[in-house]
Amino acid sequence: MSTITYDYKIDTIKSKINDLNAKNVILQFPEGLKMDAIKVSKEIQEAVPGINVIIDADPCFGACDLADLKVNKHIDLVIHFAHTPLPIKSDCPILFIEAYSDADIINPIENALKKIPENIKTIGLVTTTQHIHKLSQMVKLIEGKGFTVKLAKGEGTSQGQVLGCNFTAVKNLDVDVIVYVGSGDFHALGVKLFTKKQVILADPFTGQAREIEEFYDKIIRIRFARIIKAKEANSFGIIMSSKKGQLRFDLAIKLKELINNHGFHAEILNMDYVSPDRLLPFNLDAFVMTACPRIAIDDSAMYKKPVITPQELEIVLGITEWEDYMMDEIIIHDEQL
Amino acid sequence: MSTITYDYKIDTIKSKINDLNAKNVILQFPEGLKMDAIKVSKEIQEAVPGINVIIDADPCFGACDLADLKVNKHIDLVIHFAHTPLPIKSDCPILFIEAYSDADIINPIENALKKIPENIKTIGLVTTTQHIHKLSQMVKLIEGKGFTVKLAKGEGTSQGQVLGCNFTAVKNLDVDVIVYVGSGDFHALGVKLFTKKQVILADPFTGQAREIEEFYDKIIRIRFARIIKAKEANSFGIIMSSKKGQLRFDLAIKLKELINNHGFHAEILNMDYVSPDRLLPFNLDAFVMTACPRIAIDDSAMYKKPVITPQELEIVLGITEWEDYMMDEIIIHDEQL
Repeated sequence: MSTITYDYKIDTIKSKINDLNAKNVILQFPEGLKMDAIKVSKEIQEAVPGINVIIDADPCFGACDLADLKVNKHIDLVIHFAHTPLPIKSDCPILFIEAYSDADIINPIENALKKIPENIKTIGLVTTTQHIHKLSQMVKLIEGKGFTVKLAKGEGTSQGQVLGCNFTAVKNLDVDVIVYVGSGDFHALGVKLFTKKQVILADPFTGQAREIEEFYDKIIRIRFARIIKAKEANSFGIIMSSKKGQLRFDLAIKLKELINNHGFHAEILNMDYVSPDRLLPFNLDAFVMTACPRIAIDDSAMYKKPVITPQELEIVLGITEWEDYMMDEIIIHDEQL
Repeated sequence: MSTITYDYKIDTIKSKINDLNAKNVILQFPEGLKMDAIKVSKEIQEAVPGINVIIDADPCFGACDLADLKVNKHIDLVIHFAHTPLPIKSDCPILFIEAYSDADIINPIENALKKIPENIKTIGLVTTTQHIHKLSQMVKLIEGKGFTVKLAKGEGTSQGQVLGCNFTAVKNLDVDVIVYVGSGDFHALGVKLFTKKQVILADPFTGQAREIEEFYDKIIRIRFARIIKAKEANSFGIIMSSKKGQLRFDLAIKLKELINNHGFHAEILNMDYVSPDRLLPFNLDAFVMTACPRIAIDDSAMYKKPVITPQELEIVLGITEWEDYMMDEIIIHDEQL
């Protein structure tokens, strides 16, 4: 198994601090890199004597979560590690230091190509941030095997890139099979749901390839069960996150009106970090998640009450049909900003 | 046992919303009142049709924690329940709706007076927010028993009032015995530590009175153990909270310099909600708490590494003596604002 190699780019950070004449900087790391925070902080302080470095110790799951307004306006620069920038307006400058994996993509892609039906000669290709620097290598490899590769740029994502909350890069690919290069089932699930095409996951961390069909079936069954349960609800909590890139204020207000118009009670619950214990004091029958679209799916088992997405709410209320089931996305528009 | 009765003052809230022509309001409740949040939200929506009510579901332990900047500037008014206002500058209007207890204060005070040594005729009196509306009744009762009562106004607190982080109202009382009317050992402990006088706790919720000596001795032994352990540390994490009234940015910077000047390594860790799991990724030997002063004392057993106050750090570094042990306070000055 390969790992993610990470270049913390202290020189880039030093230049940015000097350019901005920044005095106080805050560092944001995803959970998997927080153990490097002290080392990185030390290196920055050595490179820029006199700088005040603050390490943000709160969980950070994406570029949707920016520490720009934290620490009551004391911060001159946020240094955000390992996430791709999203088009979010920030209240102070943000320096994104992206993370790339050195994991081999040749073996898993070759394994994936073996699973492609014989008659298929044109395939879609999509990957995630940590492998996106190898996209042209991927294309060359697949084309070398006699296939035509189709790729597209998403709305707010780059050529061939999906995020856990943004699948626009695959929605209009005119292909029957899509190869997803990445390790997480969740992204492959999204590709499947938004395209209804055959999706083969090529995992750079195991070197293996697998169909996503089984995971897809399992998740679909769970979602169906949650929707059925939520149909019994008379009261709903609409969960809103105060994290900038997850905040869908207007959507929360709209969903409340929608629920009210269907004769049910709804309350909007704001929280910074969404977790099951935050919901315990509120005697409501079901919850609608307007924060990160992954929470309702990935953390489903952690919640006692059904937690559904805005799209699932529409099925619960009879506005859309189960057959038109779709995942939730946050395509950042002006609404959030 | 009596309970806290709570008048949510919907008429006051309605007037304030109308005065401000507020469209979006957020409600903040302490944990013990969050179960009433839905009822209060409904009442506000009935009183002010068309208002958007957001319930803040994050923990809220005091007026130090204001939701004025949450929800990315969408909020026109914060309605903050059950805490006394602190002199914090906010980024939007805040309406404080205080909570008062109807618990009887006569029995516990009469029981407390029985514990006062015979030769003492002048006593200090102090209480907390939820009983402060009965202060003149308390004074009258005690004076009726032949005592002279001494009271003082604190810095940022009212006559006879202490907070868990502000004991200025008792520091200069020229008495040998202080009666503290309230239920929590923590406040009585602070009164004892800041005055070194005999403190008798009159508990309105049990009707009983007790000496604070035993609890004081226990806590002092624990603090001594933490300080001894922290003396072995070579690296320190300085915990800073982004909650406005707990944010001591300049203190954190100052403590870092102090630790560095003593030859040890220090990093500043920011977090919104301070909890033990936030510290796990950071390989540091001890932590200094600049957030809520109660955390180091009340939650001491929850942390694997020693968590000490800024005053305890000075003992660890040999700047002050153990004999001069003092609790931490947050007296809100311009520093935080």
